Amino acid sequence: MKTWIEENLKNLNQTDEMNPPEGFTRLSYTAEEWESITQFKQIAEDLGLHLKQDEAGNVIARWDPETEEGQKRSAAATGSHLDTVANGGGYDGAAGVLCGLGAVKMLKDQGFSPQRPIEVICFISEESARFGVSTIGSKAMAGLLDPDKLKDVADKDGVTVKEAVEFRGFNWDRITSAEREEEEIYSFLELHIEQGTRVQDAGADFGAVTAIACPIRLNVTVTGRAGHTGTTPMDRRHDALVSAAPLITFVSERAKALSAEKDLPVVATCSTIELKPNVMNVIPGTAEIGIDIRSVDDNLKEELEQEVYEKCREIEETFQVKVTTEKLVHNPSITLEPKVFETIRDTGKSAGYKPLTLESGAGHDVMNMQAKWPSGLLFIPCRDGLSHHPDEHAELEDLVMGVKLIAAYLEKETGE
Amino acid sequence: MKTWIEENLKNLNQTDEMNPPEGFTRLSYTAEEWESITQFKQIAEDLGLHLKQDEAGNVIARWDPETEEGQKRSAAATGSHLDTVANGGGYDGAAGVLCGLGAVKMLKDQGFSPQRPIEVICFISEESARFGVSTIGSKAMAGLLDPDKLKDVADKDGVTVKEAVEFRGFNWDRITSAEREEEEIYSFLELHIEQGTRVQDAGADFGAVTAIACPIRLNVTVTGRAGHTGTTPMDRRHDALVSAAPLITFVSERAKALSAEKDLPVVATCSTIELKPNVMNVIPGTAEIGIDIRSVDDNLKEELEQEVYEKCREIEETFQVKVTTEKLVHNPSITLEPKVFETIRDTGKSAGYKPLTLESGAGHDVMNMQAKWPSGLLFIPCRDGLSHHPDEHAELEDLVMGVKLIAAYLEKETGE
Repeated sequence: MKTWIEENLKNLNQTDEMNPPEGFTRLSYTAEEWESITQFKQIAEDLGLHLKQDEAGNVIARWDPETEEGQKRSAAATGSHLDTVANGGGYDGAAGVLCGLGAVKMLKDQGFSPQRPIEVICFISEESARFGVSTIGSKAMAGLLDPDKLKDVADKDGVTVKEAVEFRGFNWDRITSAEREEEEIYSFLELHIEQGTRVQDAGADFGAVTAIACPIRLNVTVTGRAGHTGTTPMDRRHDALVSAAPLITFVSERAKALSAEKDLPVVATCSTIELKPNVMNVIPGTAEIGIDIRSVDDNLKEELEQEVYEKCREIEETFQVKVTTEKLVHNPSITLEPKVFETIRDTGKSAGYKPLTLESGAGHDVMNMQAKWPSGLLFIPCRDGLSHHPDEHAELEDLVMGVKLIAAYLEKETGE
Repeated sequence: MKTWIEENLKNLNQTDEMNPPEGFTRLSYTAEEWESITQFKQIAEDLGLHLKQDEAGNVIARWDPETEEGQKRSAAATGSHLDTVANGGGYDGAAGVLCGLGAVKMLKDQGFSPQRPIEVICFISEESARFGVSTIGSKAMAGLLDPDKLKDVADKDGVTVKEAVEFRGFNWDRITSAEREEEEIYSFLELHIEQGTRVQDAGADFGAVTAIACPIRLNVTVTGRAGHTGTTPMDRRHDALVSAAPLITFVSERAKALSAEKDLPVVATCSTIELKPNVMNVIPGTAEIGIDIRSVDDNLKEELEQEVYEKCREIEETFQVKVTTEKLVHNPSITLEPKVFETIRDTGKSAGYKPLTLESGAGHDVMNMQAKWPSGLLFIPCRDGLSHHPDEHAELEDLVMGVKLIAAYLEKETGE
């Protein structure tokens, strides 16, 4: 199994070396994503799976039970994605797809005979790196895609999602046909690298995820007054950046303090900043800051959001500037199916691995699948929690564990 | 005189209205700067001045004494520039050129007969808005231009200074011929809007400038670690922006405190910031901050510079990040000729205006002229200190005062 994993990890990434200095760039609906999907199809075919590609571009590799007698129609499914961010790593997404295929191989090698279909799904275009929109494929499959809203969204070169999809040979007008019926899927499991270090820090082997923390995202604009850096005395300034600096500190410190106080953590980040005019000899006139707040506890997110608003009022008074806020995103957190969570945790334990119960700070395809089908998520460790980076790495042993965890899960879900 | 000023202010700005919402955009060596210079030539010719344009593009409008007998060869000169920043105002530069011409008109109207030549100089391309290089014209005139260093400097469209100069019909290889001999100029006076409010705050009418505060400019790069905003716990972060925030506050507060403690002020600004990757779901990995420090007291500038370095070391320890600093610019401040300063102050006082002795926080063409000739600078007030802005405004009365101040100065310098 180790050799098979090592070889096919490289095949999926179309590489001889897993950590090239420039990482991997397989943006949504590009030739690079497509070549990776072609590799997926080849491996799946070699395992004797039947392939189907829907009108969004998702590929479903299916193992149908040998005898029709007594078989159940709905499939136990697993899967993830093969696209990456620009200069990303070769494990984010690919690990889930690979371990799903590996689990099929393992079960087939053991002579296992499933009582319901097993599917390994390769979702199209999970990352938002190209279009600013994430999880296009799983949204389409779960019927959450709004084609009218999406079709004119363009990448930095002005190519729209519609054009990109049609360039891959699909009919945009039929993209909603990718939606599947509720009775087609029994349950869904995604394996993903953790992109954090909690599993490792806890001395556990894998993570069994209870919920996905979706963000509140705010845009805060501090409007002061531009002026010449040389001629404006210090006590006559309304410097937008100086006014914004305490907010940056506040967001970080309050998230830290609230996480220490409460049962569940909350993370908050001032991740973007745009100054105007942002030139050396002019005092910043405006500073626009993007804030990302996440917790599986929606109340905690909202508590921090309110504190940010209060801090903005305080800054207005202290620095005599104007602070406006805009809520860009407010997605309630998603609770994954408890029964699926328990199965992941318990079959993993029985297979000899120590689970850590945790929540996910990042969104994944599974959050869309959960909207329609009982779904779960498991994490394998990745080195130093590093992801979306050329140095992203998961140990071969952890990929082997991933294969065993998915196999154990599928065996339980499709057994007699 | 009022009507003449009002009319020719509009002519120089090629406008019917002095505060159009988009302001004025006359970047270096563009057609817009050229049209403004054409207006300058027209007004100067109407006043009977002789015109000469050098190979950098500077225009010298000269009034030669009527009789050769007993006349002195070196000229009393005044002048400023007509280019602007993007969406700038119609007074920065233009006020000095206009008041210089107005002073000639006033002296001629009074039947004054100068004993040495009088020159009104329109310097080319003072602003750094197009090429990132300021005072090209006065550098050329004072022999401070290095053509080899300058020629390949390009604007944002890739047009080089050399190309821009040649597009205006000049021969780049002859640009250094714009340098003038020491004996050609007796003294030089620039009038400029203050771009601050110190004159007004002191209840004075005009500013007599002793020195020009040239900047120390630093580039500070804070390197933390990028990571997923959702999956990286607060206590495992090395957020470059959170680490940089106390530096922003520190720079502002220390400049304020030092200005209060010391005899001369120091101003300091974190005016630019670039985050990487600057996307909503990634913790800032690096933050690059541009700091501009100015004081006519070079020791004070250097004291603050050292404090910035110490603060950077403290930030490295506190946040476990790497902070590197680079000194981009370290220009010693320029002391203007005391005799010229005294003449400006005293002739202004005699003309019935109250002077404030102050230093300039901004650079002007006069700093290059001072390198070769005894030079001085006078400020007229501008509304709210606003400059490089469509709302930049100087009162007509203050422009009339400016004409009288220059006329009084030229009369003193060229009288018997």
